Amino acid sequence: MTRTQSTLSGKGLSLDNINPNVRAAKYAVRGELAVKAEEYRARLLKGDKSLPFDSVIFANIGNPQQLDQKPITFFRQVLSLVENPLLLENPTALKTSFGYNQDVIDRAQALLTDVRSVGAYSHSQGALGIRNSVAKFIEDRDGFPANPQDLFLTAGASSGVTSLLNVICDKPSAGVLVPIPQYPLYTATLALLNARCVPYLLDEQKAWGTDVKVIEKSIADAKAEGTDVRSIAVINPGNPTGASLSPDDIKQVIDIAAAEKLVIIADEVYQTNVFSGEFVSFKKRLRQLQQEHPGKYDNVELVSLHSTSKGMVGECGHRGGYFELVGFDPLVQEQIYKLVSIGLCPPVVAQCLLETMVNPPQKGDPSFELYQKEYNGIRDGLHKRALALFDAFQRMEGVECQEPQGAMYLFPTINLPAKAVEAAKAEGRAADEFYALAMLDATGVCVVPGSGFGQKPNTLHFRTTFLAPGTDWVERIVQFHSEFMKKYGGLSKAQL
Amino acid sequence: MTRTQSTLSGKGLSLDNINPNVRAAKYAVRGELAVKAEEYRARLLKGDKSLPFDSVIFANIGNPQQLDQKPITFFRQVLSLVENPLLLENPTALKTSFGYNQDVIDRAQALLTDVRSVGAYSHSQGALGIRNSVAKFIEDRDGFPANPQDLFLTAGASSGVTSLLNVICDKPSAGVLVPIPQYPLYTATLALLNARCVPYLLDEQKAWGTDVKVIEKSIADAKAEGTDVRSIAVINPGNPTGASLSPDDIKQVIDIAAAEKLVIIADEVYQTNVFSGEFVSFKKRLRQLQQEHPGKYDNVELVSLHSTSKGMVGECGHRGGYFELVGFDPLVQEQIYKLVSIGLCPPVVAQCLLETMVNPPQKGDPSFELYQKEYNGIRDGLHKRALALFDAFQRMEGVECQEPQGAMYLFPTINLPAKAVEAAKAEGRAADEFYALAMLDATGVCVVPGSGFGQKPNTLHFRTTFLAPGTDWVERIVQFHSEFMKKYGGLSKAQL
Repeated sequence: MTRTQSTLSGKGLSLDNINPNVRAAKYAVRGELAVKAEEYRARLLKGDKSLPFDSVIFANIGNPQQLDQKPITFFRQVLSLVENPLLLENPTALKTSFGYNQDVIDRAQALLTDVRSVGAYSHSQGALGIRNSVAKFIEDRDGFPANPQDLFLTAGASSGVTSLLNVICDKPSAGVLVPIPQYPLYTATLALLNARCVPYLLDEQKAWGTDVKVIEKSIADAKAEGTDVRSIAVINPGNPTGASLSPDDIKQVIDIAAAEKLVIIADEVYQTNVFSGEFVSFKKRLRQLQQEHPGKYDNVELVSLHSTSKGMVGECGHRGGYFELVGFDPLVQEQIYKLVSIGLCPPVVAQCLLETMVNPPQKGDPSFELYQKEYNGIRDGLHKRALALFDAFQRMEGVECQEPQGAMYLFPTINLPAKAVEAAKAEGRAADEFYALAMLDATGVCVVPGSGFGQKPNTLHFRTTFLAPGTDWVERIVQFHSEFMKKYGGLSKAQL
Repeated sequence: MTRTQSTLSGKGLSLDNINPNVRAAKYAVRGELAVKAEEYRARLLKGDKSLPFDSVIFANIGNPQQLDQKPITFFRQVLSLVENPLLLENPTALKTSFGYNQDVIDRAQALLTDVRSVGAYSHSQGALGIRNSVAKFIEDRDGFPANPQDLFLTAGASSGVTSLLNVICDKPSAGVLVPIPQYPLYTATLALLNARCVPYLLDEQKAWGTDVKVIEKSIADAKAEGTDVRSIAVINPGNPTGASLSPDDIKQVIDIAAAEKLVIIADEVYQTNVFSGEFVSFKKRLRQLQQEHPGKYDNVELVSLHSTSKGMVGECGHRGGYFELVGFDPLVQEQIYKLVSIGLCPPVVAQCLLETMVNPPQKGDPSFELYQKEYNGIRDGLHKRALALFDAFQRMEGVECQEPQGAMYLFPTINLPAKAVEAAKAEGRAADEFYALAMLDATGVCVVPGSGFGQKPNTLHFRTTFLAPGTDWVERIVQFHSEFMKKYGGLSKAQL
């Protein structure tokens, strides 16, 4: 269709002639369900009494502070001072009237010396002093050095992923290995760049771990289709699955990357949301392997991403984060710098927040005790709520769920009655989407259907956060599910 | 070259096989000169005495608070409270110890009611209450209604431009009209999207105004080359030129857009930086025309962008802004929503800052007097410094400059000696780049060569901000220029 034909309205832009890559991109986390949930919330706020629930629970998105998680006091005290440095002129009043400790004041002053003003653009990679703190954090975490020149502060991890995929994807046949299920940022960004998503299925039966054979087969299949596989994205701990990879799993991914010359994109934003076992970073594992096998892993290129949005920090709205480049060609690194410089710089307040996250109060510091109490309180609360939700899923017919391992999500399998699947088909919807919409309409609880993340053919899931406080909303889900199953005639014998 | 051949290092990524669009993008504002200036600053900080100057002046970028412009107190007081709402528990101490007024406290409380926490993701278009304030601001400015549903809050204007061009550019032959000289965000983003820049020259002799004949010719030339011209970008007031368009100029652009079905991208971030005449928004002019000629302009699609980085606000580091869509097909608007939702939301603190910018203290409010004093002080200071710089350029041989009209920049023509042009060529550099590098090396003043913005063939310019305080740095430029002209043998008779 030519442009003139398609614009009957006389307008320049129509659905037919905008960038087809934008049209092709899908992003379910803020899609139809989230929009409808917002509408329900607005109706409730206006006093609408006709809905069968009195609150909307946004379990579709890892947004702790929308669900009443309190920010950590030390972080916010420091940020209030960098926002208004005039407060620093009266430290006595800060202490006596507001309980600010000297370490808060010192930190704010140090940050202001570094950035001058949070209203000034910083270096496009982020303020150098803050990158120094991030480097030290990485060194302490991994036991291997980090170079501030290789660190790029970002507006959340999303913008980092976008920049990196933009550099990596050089042509329509370029492909990036993406875990399925995955956080849909990856597929959406690849669609925008007109590059190919090369899916590799995670193994639900092995607690959503990676399976090296599956990855190898995905690569072989992609190559057979003419895809030039350039990179592998790994989300560890997993989103939406919560799974943590073992050092051995990580080694297998690194081995594949080394052999196939794949850039590893390690999305490690949930690195502190780990309930069992220990988080091991890809960087640490790579450095260990390089030590153990001199020369063998020198060609590996790794990007590790982190964020202020997740963990016990949960400061999503600030849009802070960083990525570290490991093993990149300096000429490529220059191009990445140029690309991020077009966007000028990440938000400077968020850079300051990142600094407090990677350099929190230490034992002996006046703010340490409260910091630790708040941090542990959030951590324990998340674990408790995850277990309560998991217990509820155990009670629901046809629902199977892996034990909570980390991140902020559970991703249960749902087995639905044949009649429900038919009803969904009649509406032109995926069955899990149909189920999630019915849940929202009945309970006000907004989850994301598994199809938004990708799932093994002939399986159905949904992703829910375990952030919302209280247990009322969990019971609402349980009750809805039971009624839904009844309405559609229950499971067949084969499903039981 | 195949991928394997190009990666002799054994790495997956090399300059030869990254996204060629990233390689092709140019962004001089933070390019070689800015990097060198940073290096000089670092050397000075370390006590290096070998340089012929004792400070680096970053006149390359409109970054007022890096150059000691003080933030407006009301804004920062409000932001300190939304960052740490615990401060609101002791309003008495806020007032007596820190001089916070009741309107500051009220505003912070209202914002917190709207966003819940600045640490929570907001709606992807920005918090609704804040969009309501922006809509009211636009209505008051233009005298025509604005709809919060058509407003998208952004992380600075840059991210808005990126989103919009991403939607508009549908194929490699898609073209966008860009003024020359221009802020290089436009050409860089078009390069990243593998779309075409269709340049139209501004008329230096007519105070850098638009010339409708020039635009028409650019469109005709582009069509002849097979370009599908989709949009016209207008920077008003101009960057780097500072020029303000008259209502008549604006009408001419709208007429062309209506006839050619071009989306108008009106970059209006300098709307309050106007020294003479009055800023008229494209939205206002369009609504006037629609009133005067019912039906005639109904097909026009306009995006108007604004920012918290410029004006008297100068809060670049916060990364705040918005764009308003006017006359867009709702289905296209949905796609724009989806695109921005992939990036989750703009920084919430910056959204709060935007709210204070568009809704500042009014006469009678306790914070009004100080606000007005600070605002006017910044405005008058900018004008004074612009005039001082303009005066200095009058004294410099071979330098011609339009009288300052607005924005934060002057963009003088420089006529350079033939020997200087040859010396530049010998180094493989554009002559204005050669000149700007020599200026940086001699004076520590970092400006951007005209070639970074585009300029008429056979003309040379540089862009400098007039943000830096004091006059010392201006005298450094004057002296450098005189020595440079002497060194390269002065101008020929034809040039004088």
